[in-house]
Amino acid sequence: MTAFAIAQAQKILDKQSFSRMLGTELLEFGDGRAVLALNIRLDHTQQNGFAHGGILAYLVDNAITFAAGTVLGPQLLTAGMGVEYLRPATGPRLIATAVVTASTRRRAVASCTISDDGQIVAVGQGTAQLLDAEAKP
Amino acid sequence: MTAFAIAQAQKILDKQSFSRMLGTELLEFGDGRAVLALNIRLDHTQQNGFAHGGILAYLVDNAITFAAGTVLGPQLLTAGMGVEYLRPATGPRLIATAVVTASTRRRAVASCTISDDGQIVAVGQGTAQLLDAEAKP
Amino acid sequence: MTAFAIAQAQKILDKQSFSRMLGTELLEFGDGRAVLALNIRLDHTQQNGFAHGGILAYLVDNAITFAAGTVLGPQLLTAGMGVEYLRPATGPRLIATAVVTASTRRRAVASCTISDDGQIVAVGQGTAQLLDAEAKP
Amino acid sequence: MTAFAIAQAQKILDKQSFSRMLGTELLEFGDGRAVLALNIRLDHTQQNGFAHGGILAYLVDNAITFAAGTVLGPQLLTAGMGVEYLRPATGPRLIATAVVTASTRRRAVASCTISDDGQIVAVGQGTAQLLDAEAKP
Repeated sequence: MTAFAIAQAQKILDKQSFSRMLGTELLEFGDGRAVLALNIRLDHTQQNGFAHGGILAYLVDNAITFAAGTVLGPQLLTAGMGVEYLRPATGPRLIATAVVTASTRRRAVASCTISDDGQIVAVGQGTAQLLDAEAKP
Repeated sequence: MTAFAIAQAQKILDKQSFSRMLGTELLEFGDGRAVLALNIRLDHTQQNGFAHGGILAYLVDNAITFAAGTVLGPQLLTAGMGVEYLRPATGPRLIATAVVTASTRRRAVASCTISDDGQIVAVGQGTAQLLDAEAKP
Repeated sequence: MTAFAIAQAQKILDKQSFSRMLGTELLEFGDGRAVLALNIRLDHTQQNGFAHGGILAYLVDNAITFAAGTVLGPQLLTAGMGVEYLRPATGPRLIATAVVTASTRRRAVASCTISDDGQIVAVGQGTAQLLDAEAKP
Repeated sequence: MTAFAIAQAQKILDKQSFSRMLGTELLEFGDGRAVLALNIRLDHTQQNGFAHGGILAYLVDNAITFAAGTVLGPQLLTAGMGVEYLRPATGPRLIATAVVTASTRRRAVASCTISDDGQIVAVGQGTAQLLDAEAKP
């Protein structure tokens, strides 16, 4: 019922105009795990030429939401997330790997690491829950 | 010594290719406070047409870093941040207001609220510290 | 309907065996705000004689939950929280002030500062939501 | 140089009056990993008889700090941490397992899960850094 396949996940990613503009790729999806990749371009950088912290935060947000989707299904919202920045990310290619660490029937917590050329540059954690767990505005 | 003016802050924002691509504006800068604005475009949306969570996370990240800069100066790095999503953000214009809530000589913690047409859609918190508080890689 | 008075909040605090053991006092409760106080004793310290980080985290957790209770009522659960430690807390008396920064009908986000002799030693943020927003196990 | 043994870690835990009062045990320590255990007593509970959220937050704080100590050595401070609460913790025995997910020469990020009778009740993340990375007050 709640499970859905990588093809559907790819469709959701394709419908995210923001992800399309950035060039995010979906590498893995399933069994409590999602992996995204992003090739760093000049458009992604901050004042010192590194990937902007907002790019890393976006990757954490999106990867944990997809990972949570593998256990809760597509009707979910991300309640919150946090990211710790370890090192400047220079690219050329960031890999965000998110794994669900714990879940209830309506809520999932996932951890995410972002690596850049094999070295971890940021680590994050976030929570997603079923849409109807929150009243519509 | 550490303080710097809004003109210098604007220059830093201008040098952030990512912020330029998104269209971020600097509205206020000084005395432990920074305010950013972003007009939501199609390019900023997720699959349901709302501003992507990564856009909100980017705004929190950038606003708290600028707010921290008003007390620590421009040589800082953001150690980490977290954001809680309250409501879907539809635009047309997001305002991110960050305020330093506490600081030491080398570290500052700031809170940030993002409002959309007068209603708060996300709340965040983050920490920045002087660059030399972390060893260079 | 959801609002409740400081007398009821005091009763809840009194029923928290952990808070009774620590000696937590409720100073203020109402209108999106709660203030707790704790006199630091030897039993609260870590290896260097400062208040243990867990004591500060407890104060953030409890203060934000009470603050959220002023807007959501007593049937809530704390979904998560984070704390940034600024300085060692030596006591003699910690004051934790939590304020709801944003809320929906079912969820509230609160910020908290902990001061020690007038100086901020820690800052936190957390989210609480109505109990029925999460399925019972 | 920075590594230290479980015997020294046990001494540090023994010097934490707060941990002694609670009854925390050190089960594992080494190689980026620390495991703490706590038998839940009436003194640890909140108003509904569950372990207080502050107890879980304390365990996350302490476990990630010890895990970070296995890579950074004993001269560290915890910069911040966050915890997501999944389920009420009834005991009788909580196990907090923290693992360093990434580190630089001066900073370590660790994740922590707290299980209660084999089921995860809370998940957390935190950052610790070398003491001299922060100026003394």
